[in-house]
Amino acid sequence: MSLRLSSTESDFESRFAALLATKRESSDDVDQTVRAIVADVRARGDAALAEYTARFDRVDLATVGIAIGPEELAAAEAEITEEQRAALAFAKGRIESYHARQKPQDARFVDDAGVELGWRWSAVPSVGLYVPGGTAAYPSSVLMNAVPAKVAGVDRVVMVVPTPDGAIAPLVLAAAKIAGVDEVYRVGGAQAVAALAYGTETIAPVAKIVGPGNAYVAAAKRQVFGTVGIDMIAGPSEVVVVADADNNPDWIAADLLAQAEHDTAAQSILITDDAGFADQVARAVEAQLTTLPRAAIAAPSWRDFGAIIVLDDLADAPPLVDRLAPEHLELAVADPDALADRIRHAGAIFLGAYTPEAVGDYVAGSNHVLPTARSARFSSGLSVLDFMKRTSLLRCDADSLARLGAATRTLAAAEGLDAHGRSVSVRLNR
Amino acid sequence: MSLRLSSTESDFESRFAALLATKRESSDDVDQTVRAIVADVRARGDAALAEYTARFDRVDLATVGIAIGPEELAAAEAEITEEQRAALAFAKGRIESYHARQKPQDARFVDDAGVELGWRWSAVPSVGLYVPGGTAAYPSSVLMNAVPAKVAGVDRVVMVVPTPDGAIAPLVLAAAKIAGVDEVYRVGGAQAVAALAYGTETIAPVAKIVGPGNAYVAAAKRQVFGTVGIDMIAGPSEVVVVADADNNPDWIAADLLAQAEHDTAAQSILITDDAGFADQVARAVEAQLTTLPRAAIAAPSWRDFGAIIVLDDLADAPPLVDRLAPEHLELAVADPDALADRIRHAGAIFLGAYTPEAVGDYVAGSNHVLPTARSARFSSGLSVLDFMKRTSLLRCDADSLARLGAATRTLAAAEGLDAHGRSVSVRLNR
Repeated sequence: MSLRLSSTESDFESRFAALLATKRESSDDVDQTVRAIVADVRARGDAALAEYTARFDRVDLATVGIAIGPEELAAAEAEITEEQRAALAFAKGRIESYHARQKPQDARFVDDAGVELGWRWSAVPSVGLYVPGGTAAYPSSVLMNAVPAKVAGVDRVVMVVPTPDGAIAPLVLAAAKIAGVDEVYRVGGAQAVAALAYGTETIAPVAKIVGPGNAYVAAAKRQVFGTVGIDMIAGPSEVVVVADADNNPDWIAADLLAQAEHDTAAQSILITDDAGFADQVARAVEAQLTTLPRAAIAAPSWRDFGAIIVLDDLADAPPLVDRLAPEHLELAVADPDALADRIRHAGAIFLGAYTPEAVGDYVAGSNHVLPTARSARFSSGLSVLDFMKRTSLLRCDADSLARLGAATRTLAAAEGLDAHGRSVSVRLNR
Repeated sequence: MSLRLSSTESDFESRFAALLATKRESSDDVDQTVRAIVADVRARGDAALAEYTARFDRVDLATVGIAIGPEELAAAEAEITEEQRAALAFAKGRIESYHARQKPQDARFVDDAGVELGWRWSAVPSVGLYVPGGTAAYPSSVLMNAVPAKVAGVDRVVMVVPTPDGAIAPLVLAAAKIAGVDEVYRVGGAQAVAALAYGTETIAPVAKIVGPGNAYVAAAKRQVFGTVGIDMIAGPSEVVVVADADNNPDWIAADLLAQAEHDTAAQSILITDDAGFADQVARAVEAQLTTLPRAAIAAPSWRDFGAIIVLDDLADAPPLVDRLAPEHLELAVADPDALADRIRHAGAIFLGAYTPEAVGDYVAGSNHVLPTARSARFSSGLSVLDFMKRTSLLRCDADSLARLGAATRTLAAAEGLDAHGRSVSVRLNR
């Protein structure tokens, strides 16, 4: 059984705090292993890449080549069904439209001291997209990472994906083709991250690396951070559903299980104000589990990390939600906007009973790469901004420089940086 | 003598590539030391903080207290000169005005499928600002980090600053007071970063940590990344000056030295199209060094990492500048805008001969925390956006959900995530 908390119990606060503190990931210390792999690929390039790929994926790159070429992508696209192709294209179009609205504005203005100021946005020149292989190979993730990069104007979007025993999901390659990925390589793990960061004979280095991966991939991204940019380090997925009793328990149970089926470490939490409704949802979860193909994953996730929290009043939900700072938040209540206005920390908010989180995973258009593990307190979902950067622009003339001169020289002197002061005074003939 | 390259030499490309690859920082491996300190502060809180502070800073926190209180800040503000106070207030006002323009817009729209979409920005709730102690204690850095946080709406801005042997620059504390910093603690190093990330009995944890520091601070920030957000890991400062022969060599030399005086690992590069002018600047640098108080820092920086690059034509500069992707770029040419339009990678561009980089360090209003070590290819200077995060908003009704339903179920099925599909179909009675 999943956890059950009630705000009327005297130990509610301590039990809620314990729920907050639950660790859902074992953090293997793979740093040393990864450090050796990264150094080796950096030193020996393709040869090292081939050795690690032979060892970990049982694939001989000398035979099949490092690159997955256009003909292989076209073959993959031909292999999937027409319905799948249409769904990918539909999703791609919607993601593109949503993200096009995120393109930031340049600015240029003259302020009251006569200084011309502003900034200019430009695209990151090249981006590497890590795509996990095996069962976690999600074509939707390819779209969610590659489409915003293309909208931003990234010149070169490079995808790496491991092909254990030579296997690769045709949908993943088809998604790459539909998203306009420029290059695809059949490598994975820390070795692929190192290749993207430092380059090899075959793979030119990129400026930024994004995309989810296992502990080795995460450690490698952390290690190459600085040489290249990286996106967030993603943890297991999670949802908080706030639902009153005017909901169909089957709908809410389905949403809790949609999150739970991702990963045994995923977390689904229901917050409601009705104990009877809570019971109905709990029963519906158990009933739906009996026919769920991924019950072997969803059941332990629900059992170990799921929770139902019963409050006296859903008006008390916002501070609890903010402490959880969930990746996904569903508000299945009569006035979801009013409740949303009282909540500050969430990756994405799904408003009303007809907005199951799953639409956000695929086709709503918003990005499904969202901050996990309470990081919605300080970070955002993936956006076009992650693939652009800003250059500040400044221009003085003799008059405006004179207006800034005294304060500049005072502060430079206070910091003991005389050459700073001189670079101003030499221009002012002082 | 600093390096001298000319595009007419046959080995120009290899020498420029070598300049690009120059390592200016030795990266001590302090990871293990830092890991132990972080774990200890996390486990033992204030007691561990006191022990490390006694050991590294020779300060007894039991006597002086961890917090630097309002009366100590007020005393510091009283201690500085009126001119300094006015300069700090002038800088603060200008930084505030510039950054207020960066506040992002929320969005909300209904798309052609009838889906209501959008996003909402909110401030990071709490931010820790690391301020180095000793000679690198810069009041301008306090303003550049704290003011944008306050403009963003951060509720709680916490500053940590080590006070080796009890010493602290009054200007740093005065800047904290003027910037509106909410709490100040006299701790530094990895132990301060750990205290900010995990909290102690005295210091409540923050959601994000920003600010420069030494190798221990950088390693600690990297280690706590994920638990809290962090800003970029800053390297030594750098400038590229593109100047034609119509410049006063003394002005350009002053700018090169203003960068060089920061740090022996700082880098100043001049790109010009006139060998005679290059000689004049080189001589002016040597002449100014003879009277520069920080010559002991600026001279080795210029000797070891400085460079003068002479091109046939400054029209060839943009690709070289983009490869350098400098933190600061000065364009002292007749039409700096035209040249700037051809350059993509730079942290900040200073347009025209009357815009020395030093104004950007203090009072221009733009942020002086800028991407170093070629990271302008993939990252931006500090901004209000670094202290805010975005929540996606989605809302379907029965009709719009039906329009998204088929593609959602197709992609969920393709990914083997049946509960995802069910969460849609259960609402559509299918």
